[in-house]
Amino acid sequence: MYQPRLATKEDMPRVYELIKELAIFEKEPDAVEVTVEQLVQDGYGKQPKFVCFVVEVNNKVEGLALIYTRYSTWKGEVIHLEDLIVSQALRGKGLGTVLLDEVVKHGKQKDVKRISWEVLDWNESAIKFYEKKGANVMRDWDVVQMDSKAIDNYISKL
Amino acid sequence: MYQPRLATKEDMPRVYELIKELAIFEKEPDAVEVTVEQLVQDGYGKQPKFVCFVVEVNNKVEGLALIYTRYSTWKGEVIHLEDLIVSQALRGKGLGTVLLDEVVKHGKQKDVKRISWEVLDWNESAIKFYEKKGANVMRDWDVVQMDSKAIDNYISKL
Repeated sequence: MYQPRLATKEDMPRVYELIKELAIFEKEPDAVEVTVEQLVQDGYGKQPKFVCFVVEVNNKVEGLALIYTRYSTWKGEVIHLEDLIVSQALRGKGLGTVLLDEVVKHGKQKDVKRISWEVLDWNESAIKFYEKKGANVMRDWDVVQMDSKAIDNYISKL
Repeated sequence: MYQPRLATKEDMPRVYELIKELAIFEKEPDAVEVTVEQLVQDGYGKQPKFVCFVVEVNNKVEGLALIYTRYSTWKGEVIHLEDLIVSQALRGKGLGTVLLDEVVKHGKQKDVKRISWEVLDWNESAIKFYEKKGANVMRDWDVVQMDSKAIDNYISKL
């Protein structure tokens, strides 16, 4: 069985590669603006902005789960799973499960009342996987985003 | 013009009322498990878990915007708008706009590359409002949640 562990600074170049790989899969190859340096700075400073678990196969990181806390006005502090990534070449071997296990165990340990994440509605294999694991894919809730350009545009009209 | 301000501890009882009001509107009247005390503790401790703006009409808080930071593996630290609430009796007077203005100004000040939130897909007036403001309602992204019961169930199967 694969054994997940906490990612270290040294894993960030490979974590970055997997983030890029997922962005390409999600048809947003140019959306990644973070850098390896920024990941190191943000995840390993005095107040880490995320926690990352990784899992290795043959001494190479082939999957990751990156989480942080959010605040629900219904449930208090909750955990958000920003990315659950398994390298395309290693799909279907159970890496996603061991990573999700780790995230849920972490959530239970912190005694949060919710773990949330987001999924593309055409990613049927992911949705099937999440539902099998007992998660609720809430098709009636949509994600809304205002990007840099929209923010600047908004500000210019104030 | 209404003038939003930062919420204080003393506003939390009214903030709680508005949170409850929204939960009823969203057809989840029993979903609110936080308490006024928890809001005070979480928002006004050493490491506040959220920032809340409120707006008053006739010396009564009639709207709020509650935000916190998230971490995007594409954009770095971003702002999430958890709740934008205007009391039902005071809708359509521009309170939502002044609150959203405040959130976007805050985001610009922090130089984030994204402000995100979530919306119910049947809440057409909210969607129309957000789109008019330049936000992107991403109908292809769904919210996924694992609640306490699902977490416990998951853990029991490990």
